[in-house]
Amino acid sequence: MTRPSSPWNVPPADRERQRELKRDAVILAAARAFRERGYHNTSLDDIAAVLHVTKPTLYYYVSNKEQMLFECFREGLGRIAAACGEARDANASGRERLIAVVRGYAEAITSDFGWCMVRAEDQDLSPQMSARIKALKSEIDQDIRRLVRQGISDGSIAAGDPKMVAFAIAGALNWIAHWYRDDASLSASAIADRFIEFFVNGLAPRVSGATAGKSP
Amino acid sequence: MTRPSSPWNVPPADRERQRELKRDAVILAAARAFRERGYHNTSLDDIAAVLHVTKPTLYYYVSNKEQMLFECFREGLGRIAAACGEARDANASGRERLIAVVRGYAEAITSDFGWCMVRAEDQDLSPQMSARIKALKSEIDQDIRRLVRQGISDGSIAAGDPKMVAFAIAGALNWIAHWYRDDASLSASAIADRFIEFFVNGLAPRVSGATAGKSP
Repeated sequence: MTRPSSPWNVPPADRERQRELKRDAVILAAARAFRERGYHNTSLDDIAAVLHVTKPTLYYYVSNKEQMLFECFREGLGRIAAACGEARDANASGRERLIAVVRGYAEAITSDFGWCMVRAEDQDLSPQMSARIKALKSEIDQDIRRLVRQGISDGSIAAGDPKMVAFAIAGALNWIAHWYRDDASLSASAIADRFIEFFVNGLAPRVSGATAGKSP
Repeated sequence: MTRPSSPWNVPPADRERQRELKRDAVILAAARAFRERGYHNTSLDDIAAVLHVTKPTLYYYVSNKEQMLFECFREGLGRIAAACGEARDANASGRERLIAVVRGYAEAITSDFGWCMVRAEDQDLSPQMSARIKALKSEIDQDIRRLVRQGISDGSIAAGDPKMVAFAIAGALNWIAHWYRDDASLSASAIADRFIEFFVNGLAPRVSGATAGKSP
């Protein structure tokens, strides 16, 4: 079965699934528009025009522009949270699980939702929505710190300040949204490889033959 | 000699120096106001009120709000550029010089100008001003890449991708502006220490007694 070119062309089969596909298309179009023009310079008319639908059609899926931004934040952060969840369940060292989160994080931040996650301002959301986004971000931060602490205690990560290490890693990853372009030469996974190499081994050359650089 | 509480109270001695002090006070007040309320939510009246001067007085130092933002960007980026300049002249390994830049960068980004440097949008500036800010940022990026390459060639930094390492380091440092608060428990220099420890040694434990972690 090939995927239809527009979710508005899906044959009438599963109405609930159709609605979900259409809602996802609305959120994706919003994320792209916000990234291209900025949140304040984008209108619901702009997003409707991209999707070839009327503005009232959009209101069937989201109640206003603010909710679109909220859903974009949530979609992007949800991808990172999913990577953290998988890492939590994995049977591996703290360092290996942290590396898996870094990969998922890099994929999320280079996605269409990266701009919203990093460059849109929480203050454009209602206090309730902003509080929920802050809570999601805080959970991700706590997950990363926990993996660093686990790595320190299982010996796969050198002793250090888990909070500052988590901030440094998340900052380096978040900043990708500032410089990454879809047409850039490196894929998300190639960027992740290079970042992981740096995060794991550091700047200082390792003694040749030392096993510390390898996974325990 | 004690410093006067307001640069408008300086006794009439060196008029040029006075003007400079007052201009610096205007830029600093603007940086703080932008950080607190956001650029779009701050008016020249707000800044004038903080300084206890009239709006026409401000126009003696800057021509408009946009120029204030530009000067804030320039002041903050200038501090990082100064650290890069000092590193360029230093007689030390690439890694030691890079570490010195990281220290200066952390000081600049935790200063009152950090918000403007990282969270204000270039697009709020005229194309000419924006181009000058982009050029300043690009110089800093090139300086950091150059130090990484020098470190690789003098053996103080392990082989890697200088561009990606520079992006990861600058991203981690820039992101400090998102989480740092003046009343936070760690000083700029303590944050720099922890970041440097992570950047230099990485996550993987080093072999005990290995000399690679030390300065060559």
